[in-house]
Amino acid sequence: MLPTRVALFGLGAIGREAVRLAGAKPRLQVVGAVDRDPAKAGRSLAEVAGLPFPAKTRVHATLAELLAATGPPQVLLHTATSHAALAFEQVRPALEAGTSVVSTCEELIFPRLRSAPETDACDALCRRTGARLVATGVNPGFAMDLLPILASAVSREVTGVYCSRVVDAATRRRPLQAKIGCGLDPDEFRRQWRLGAVGHAGFRQSLALIAHALGWQLDGIDEACEPVIATEPVQTPHFQVEPGQTRGLHQRVVGIVCGVEAIELDLTMALGEPDPHDTVRLGGRPPLELTIPGGTPGDDATVAHLINVIPRLLVAAPGVRLLTELPMAAPEAPRRD
Amino acid sequence: MLPTRVALFGLGAIGREAVRLAGAKPRLQVVGAVDRDPAKAGRSLAEVAGLPFPAKTRVHATLAELLAATGPPQVLLHTATSHAALAFEQVRPALEAGTSVVSTCEELIFPRLRSAPETDACDALCRRTGARLVATGVNPGFAMDLLPILASAVSREVTGVYCSRVVDAATRRRPLQAKIGCGLDPDEFRRQWRLGAVGHAGFRQSLALIAHALGWQLDGIDEACEPVIATEPVQTPHFQVEPGQTRGLHQRVVGIVCGVEAIELDLTMALGEPDPHDTVRLGGRPPLELTIPGGTPGDDATVAHLINVIPRLLVAAPGVRLLTELPMAAPEAPRRD
Repeated sequence: MLPTRVALFGLGAIGREAVRLAGAKPRLQVVGAVDRDPAKAGRSLAEVAGLPFPAKTRVHATLAELLAATGPPQVLLHTATSHAALAFEQVRPALEAGTSVVSTCEELIFPRLRSAPETDACDALCRRTGARLVATGVNPGFAMDLLPILASAVSREVTGVYCSRVVDAATRRRPLQAKIGCGLDPDEFRRQWRLGAVGHAGFRQSLALIAHALGWQLDGIDEACEPVIATEPVQTPHFQVEPGQTRGLHQRVVGIVCGVEAIELDLTMALGEPDPHDTVRLGGRPPLELTIPGGTPGDDATVAHLINVIPRLLVAAPGVRLLTELPMAAPEAPRRD
Repeated sequence: MLPTRVALFGLGAIGREAVRLAGAKPRLQVVGAVDRDPAKAGRSLAEVAGLPFPAKTRVHATLAELLAATGPPQVLLHTATSHAALAFEQVRPALEAGTSVVSTCEELIFPRLRSAPETDACDALCRRTGARLVATGVNPGFAMDLLPILASAVSREVTGVYCSRVVDAATRRRPLQAKIGCGLDPDEFRRQWRLGAVGHAGFRQSLALIAHALGWQLDGIDEACEPVIATEPVQTPHFQVEPGQTRGLHQRVVGIVCGVEAIELDLTMALGEPDPHDTVRLGGRPPLELTIPGGTPGDDATVAHLINVIPRLLVAAPGVRLLTELPMAAPEAPRRD
């Protein structure tokens, strides 16, 4: 069986780690990458990612260039934006060529929430060319959506969903520490939250995915975010946080179903936050609780999910797919059913 | 949208509870049931299950009788045996009529392990008639197979799988308390285990499903079961256990992959067993642990899983399906892809 030909779109920290993991999997063959950064485009992927790829495996400045150089790969791994509409725009040439896309774009976890017309157009395109698109991740994409959805499989009747995730951000990447507002004055944090410059992306999409899987009609979504304030100095390789400054965020999103707060997702990501964990509680019969002590490790798990979903996507029907539409495992070559 | 027409095969405790839950779901319509027990066959389902079904909804002595009386339903819920070969035999008339089957048969969780030729024949039959067959449950079917498989989605590389389930059997049904050997002399327990009269069914199938989902080739499976001995008297509505007698079982199954014990499932089900829980640990990068404190409640969750899987099965391709081949959710009417 020939390996699956994959290419990368975006060589930030997650993209570079994904290329290393894909390069280590015998069933995948990395054929090239796209990054518009002039420091990367035009070089060999081996140089940029620090792995012994053949010298002909290049980083291209545009997707069109990559497709012309390598022909359409079977799968494009897309790690370049949080915004669904932009992601659709970026990957369209791949979908037109019949290449399927796995993306870390947070809004693509439930793209209809914010970009319904673009989702419809992209879905129609995929059905024409045979391509599929899906988004994965840890949050969104696992800890606060797939876990409660899996648990709901053994509930006679779910009456409410509560998820709590606590992340100690001290050892995480600089972009994450920046995204949670580290070092900001609390008022500046609130101002940047209103502008969308800080905060966790994809939270409403996790909630919408849960509601969709349960067959619940959402009447509304409320979202709020507050800074977590340092009471003593905190130092990371990237930030120096003084007492009174922001060391992270506490973000909460609530889904209203039939007038009731039926889904609540509660996220704290802060430097030095104690007791990190992921916990899911389903109300109903039976009540169910599920916990990941320590929490799902963000970066390793994000890269793993991106790669692991590839064979599961390739057996799905063409179109824009939700993670919940894929089979849980697809260990064999796709069968002709 | 018309409700899905379902029928029951087997009206034991799980079957009767399933008919009640199905009757309460607006998207399902119960059209009849099959049970060879003369105390049930020929009566109305309303009488047997204690629910206000129409009087014309009957319990039939055979599946052929039911099919003749109601026409083929879309789904048959099968709760009548633990043995795959017998289950295939029992449901064949339904599959021939194009009716899909959801079964609690433990061996059907991974039917090829013990009944490969029967699985092939049944799969071919399903593809001819458009029917699907899948098995669900809690154990096997959720706690010690689906949970580790879901967790593996966010692992870069799984090096080992360890699952532990502890059940306090004191409040469970009589058949379960009998199955775990309550009240037996320890030597009699060991004799009955060798004969297959006591013990947890489907354990090897859980292990085989995990190996399959991970793409691992099993070199061998070792299984052992020991009685858990009472040190003080234990009384249940069904059994009186004296000190020195069996109050439950400790069963362990290990899967060998490349010469290493790569999968270990460890199950204790005993009267009064403290600290019930389900725990999954994956070795690898990152190491992952997931716990259900108190454990997945057996009977409620078994019935729930049986019913909840129906729409997910009906969007799958015809054939004998594994639970891992179904989408995690199918909230809408099947689309024509």
